[in-house]
Amino acid sequence: MTDARFEPLKVKMEEASLDAMAFIPGSNFRRIFGRNFHLNERPLVIIVPRTGDPVAVVPKLETASFSGLDFPGPVFYWRDEAGFAEAFSGAAVALPQLGTARAFGLEAQRMRVFEMMALRTAFPGAIFTDAHDAISAIRIRKTAEEVALQKEAIRISEAALDATLQEVRVGQTEREIESILLRQLFAHGADGLAFEPIVAAGDNSAEPHAHSRADYRIKPGDALLFDFGASHEGYLADITRTFFVAAVSDHDRAFYETVLTANEAGRAAARSGVSAHDVDDTVQRVLENSQFAAFARHKTGHGLGLDVHEAPQIMRGNHATLEEGMVFTVEPGLYREGECGVRIEDDVLVTNEGIECLTSFPRQLRIVG
Amino acid sequence: MTDARFEPLKVKMEEASLDAMAFIPGSNFRRIFGRNFHLNERPLVIIVPRTGDPVAVVPKLETASFSGLDFPGPVFYWRDEAGFAEAFSGAAVALPQLGTARAFGLEAQRMRVFEMMALRTAFPGAIFTDAHDAISAIRIRKTAEEVALQKEAIRISEAALDATLQEVRVGQTEREIESILLRQLFAHGADGLAFEPIVAAGDNSAEPHAHSRADYRIKPGDALLFDFGASHEGYLADITRTFFVAAVSDHDRAFYETVLTANEAGRAAARSGVSAHDVDDTVQRVLENSQFAAFARHKTGHGLGLDVHEAPQIMRGNHATLEEGMVFTVEPGLYREGECGVRIEDDVLVTNEGIECLTSFPRQLRIVG
Repeated sequence: MTDARFEPLKVKMEEASLDAMAFIPGSNFRRIFGRNFHLNERPLVIIVPRTGDPVAVVPKLETASFSGLDFPGPVFYWRDEAGFAEAFSGAAVALPQLGTARAFGLEAQRMRVFEMMALRTAFPGAIFTDAHDAISAIRIRKTAEEVALQKEAIRISEAALDATLQEVRVGQTEREIESILLRQLFAHGADGLAFEPIVAAGDNSAEPHAHSRADYRIKPGDALLFDFGASHEGYLADITRTFFVAAVSDHDRAFYETVLTANEAGRAAARSGVSAHDVDDTVQRVLENSQFAAFARHKTGHGLGLDVHEAPQIMRGNHATLEEGMVFTVEPGLYREGECGVRIEDDVLVTNEGIECLTSFPRQLRIVG
Repeated sequence: MTDARFEPLKVKMEEASLDAMAFIPGSNFRRIFGRNFHLNERPLVIIVPRTGDPVAVVPKLETASFSGLDFPGPVFYWRDEAGFAEAFSGAAVALPQLGTARAFGLEAQRMRVFEMMALRTAFPGAIFTDAHDAISAIRIRKTAEEVALQKEAIRISEAALDATLQEVRVGQTEREIESILLRQLFAHGADGLAFEPIVAAGDNSAEPHAHSRADYRIKPGDALLFDFGASHEGYLADITRTFFVAAVSDHDRAFYETVLTANEAGRAAARSGVSAHDVDDTVQRVLENSQFAAFARHKTGHGLGLDVHEAPQIMRGNHATLEEGMVFTVEPGLYREGECGVRIEDDVLVTNEGIECLTSFPRQLRIVG
């Protein structure tokens, strides 16, 4: 049986000399099947061989949902009381072409160790390789429908940020401001979060992956950094803006303007045919040639879609060429540890004429609170 | 150096004849260190040997956050440009006692395949085993502080449900009602979601893991099932209530009352010294001895804390004894496929005198909308 949904996978398997790929619920699963399942302690694994029909191992209580996939191969259901080992064995019997020393490509940044162990027991001769890049390449170029969903996630996120800033006051804690942001995200229609939002002020803004603090109250002169995104139908926004509370020093203003210049340079450099390396190099040079060179800490950005961090990585050393339909972040930052951090992050779509910047929240230095 | 945080792990390693355990950010990490990190494509792995100091592999840009852990052993930082392989090699050199054919226990339901592959490359002789149960056993009995955080997550969840029901009207879609619930959760102080909420009506309520639909409008006679929970400081609520829209048939009323009787029987059976098997058996017997025996589909419940599904599993075959401090769900359900599903889920704490039911939202059959 041929099923068009598996054709892109079969092409990738040919290219990478793989005999099979295995999937669990998540972004690749969602892209292939158009719907998703909860990822929990009950394994749900789909094995797609290069030749022949795919086979699924599915928790019994997902029967009704799974029937909605219109799955073209055998399905081995398992019950909590019996455990899943027998269902995996059944899958192996149904896939005799994978019986001896076959190469399985795994979503290695997604699949958990226990699912791989179950596969290893059922396919004792198999060789497991990390096919994360090959597999996620099937969704590196977004369709118009996907871009429309991302634009809606971004619209919600920017409206929520705008509403949040109206409520920010000197003396609030980071945690209180995070609560306002969360409330506004869902009030504006988010159906989930791209990731746990970062609301970080003062010295905490200098931690790229800060956690908001319940015991720190924002005060005049603080940087106030928001890094967050709504999800909409599985598609994600990821935006960072940094403001200053009540006042800003000349030094911090120059610091901010350096990051903004790097952000602008990155957006200007990005277009179809340019490499990810070149975009990052352009951005890093702005930072490295500034008086704040010592405070750069990370690459320019990452792809964005059903996952918050996906291909293409916008970093030196990644010589892959940008192509129409790719969506990624441009998010230079500078971090003076213990003092102040600034990051300005946009989401851009590569078009046939350059890029379309999907985020539009103003970037000029703004005083809040 | 002795560090009290690792002592419970060393006990578990002795019991399970393991030479080391490895951790990534998540619930076990949070319990051990009191704080957490974002889990993303950048591996952050802590290796705790049975003898000697622990070693960490940490992304460079987490330097400031990681320093907050007061980590007692060597830390190998890695940068995006260089990749993480060298940091893992450094960790192996720093752990000569793990050099030959040593047994590593992994959080196999948490750790991703690529992190295990990195460990396998750095420790070529290692034997990796699934130590998920042994590791998560360190947090199976909640402290008073943990219970207080869970109670707050539950208070937020129940207040949000109450507020949501005030806004439910015949003709709304499942998705619209889910949006109201999300907005109310964050308005009441949730700092995250335990999982993607389930709001399912009519035939969709009969899918235990339903996804809310944008195109289904609730109508009189429908069951309307909410299964959701707030998170508060990492601790989770998980509550299900099923209502009927505008009207309920006699048949559905009997169906509902059967589930409620099973829920009550489960809560009555649970106490310190009883086995998880016995609690599930009590619940299943109520369902199996009813006229609706054919519609039971799943076990009684699961542990709840930093993870939404953790030990103890409340299921036949799990003869582990319930102990003071355990928190788990009691959530019997019945599902008439294509027609109607009912589930009633409470969160209970085992005390020295029986249980304390942490959820208190009324359970009697209620008509809404």
